[in-house]
Amino acid sequence: MHTAVFGLGAMGFGVATSVLKAGNPTYGFDVSTSQVEKFHKAGGSPTALNDIVSKLECVVVVVLNAAQTESVLFGDAGVVPKLAAGTIVISCATVAPEFARDMALRCGEYEVLYLDAPISGGSVKAANGELSVLASGARESFDAARPVLDAMASTVFELGHDAGAGSAMKSVNQLLAGVHIATMAEALTFGVTQGVSPEKFLQVISQCAGSSWMLENRAPHIINGDYTPLSAVNIWLKDLGIVLDIADTANFDAPVTKAALQQFTRASEQGLGQEDDSAVAKVYARDAGIKLPGE
Amino acid sequence: MHTAVFGLGAMGFGVATSVLKAGNPTYGFDVSTSQVEKFHKAGGSPTALNDIVSKLECVVVVVLNAAQTESVLFGDAGVVPKLAAGTIVISCATVAPEFARDMALRCGEYEVLYLDAPISGGSVKAANGELSVLASGARESFDAARPVLDAMASTVFELGHDAGAGSAMKSVNQLLAGVHIATMAEALTFGVTQGVSPEKFLQVISQCAGSSWMLENRAPHIINGDYTPLSAVNIWLKDLGIVLDIADTANFDAPVTKAALQQFTRASEQGLGQEDDSAVAKVYARDAGIKLPGE
Repeated sequence: MHTAVFGLGAMGFGVATSVLKAGNPTYGFDVSTSQVEKFHKAGGSPTALNDIVSKLECVVVVVLNAAQTESVLFGDAGVVPKLAAGTIVISCATVAPEFARDMALRCGEYEVLYLDAPISGGSVKAANGELSVLASGARESFDAARPVLDAMASTVFELGHDAGAGSAMKSVNQLLAGVHIATMAEALTFGVTQGVSPEKFLQVISQCAGSSWMLENRAPHIINGDYTPLSAVNIWLKDLGIVLDIADTANFDAPVTKAALQQFTRASEQGLGQEDDSAVAKVYARDAGIKLPGE
Repeated sequence: MHTAVFGLGAMGFGVATSVLKAGNPTYGFDVSTSQVEKFHKAGGSPTALNDIVSKLECVVVVVLNAAQTESVLFGDAGVVPKLAAGTIVISCATVAPEFARDMALRCGEYEVLYLDAPISGGSVKAANGELSVLASGARESFDAARPVLDAMASTVFELGHDAGAGSAMKSVNQLLAGVHIATMAEALTFGVTQGVSPEKFLQVISQCAGSSWMLENRAPHIINGDYTPLSAVNIWLKDLGIVLDIADTANFDAPVTKAALQQFTRASEQGLGQEDDSAVAKVYARDAGIKLPGE
């Protein structure tokens, strides 16, 4: 399938190379020319969008948020009005369900198919074509997207035939994942004040009722003192911000999420925004006057 | 081993019957005479404490908190001064590490051994002798406690030779477990406002990065509309209260824990204190004007 990937960041670059490796002619676009050149070196076709837009069969949008998604699809140089009827748009950014429904409707006006398809799994899984996709959309959208979904993901959750359901589940997952990272950091540093070493914390708690997927995944970063950003602190300002925006619209109060977001915000204010999200533990450590491994 | 179990509530009754089933002459004591009678019917020896106290080899304390533990051990009718030298006290309540260290010292004045041994696992595992014990204490305390630990637990974490380390790890685990229950409730009800059913929530999120041990364990209670208290809302007022007391003493700020405790407190104020802790979801549902299964 002739496929264009918009957004060649940590996730999008992995998606683009995965789709390419599966044998699809793949075109990559990004505001960063260095990312575009990197993709060309990895085998991407160095072609101007206008030269191939009419033969595209699939467009994957892996940008940061709703505003960038809308810009790619319907902005001044928006791609949707130029696409052939029946082309499938796979939209991967974390957005509000209402926004996803709106995009699906507007694509429909051009007879373009839309799949609400937020992704999960991090940059390593993206590079290996092993993402999880929380997808919803019309039957024909799933059918059209299948070859590209197969190339980029190891798990596709089919969450119904209405755009928005995928984004709803993604925001629910992000609420939990973000809070669990902050709570891991709170508990690990609290333990240090009580004589529990980070190593012992992980060893024991991972076998107890206090464990979480994020605890088992992120606590090792703190133990190793390695804050290489597999997923950065600032991602949570964005994603928990989206969760709280959606919650506000629904008059839903989410006090635990708010408390967690506050800690990520403080981390960002302390200059930790580009570090791995486990660096939120440094906020607690500074408050409590304790040292973490590697400090 | 001649063993006395103080506290025959949801956890203590299971501990007492497990110790009894393992072949130990076991004496059960509780302020509730009906619980004591129930234990006698289950095979416990109906003997007055004063008639057997001198031949006790082990005392297990499974009461609610530090105040009750101190009362059992050193109150007006406190048992420790009457125990033979070398008797082991296994202390199972969730308490501050400092309190555990103090109890160990005071037992030592009577040549009584002490094991700081908070338990985890719930009443069903207690009844089956399959608890987890987060234990710390002197080598001879572990040796003396071994037969009774084997009878009551399937997993014993040995956390060092100083009383307090077990209680420290327990408070770390309770912080995480309590926050994860509240967060599960927050995410599940948020999902409902966005069209995600509780069933779909559990089915998808349990396979995603947002999962936790507590989410997988407690979300089914909400889906089934079954709030039979395996662990009650009010337990978290106590345990997260203990966590925040310890944190205060260490000048440690725990904002996510505070937000979670606030939701359990609201649940209790709304008359849900004796229901299963998953009933904290009802607070969110009432706030948001949505219905949960069974309502």
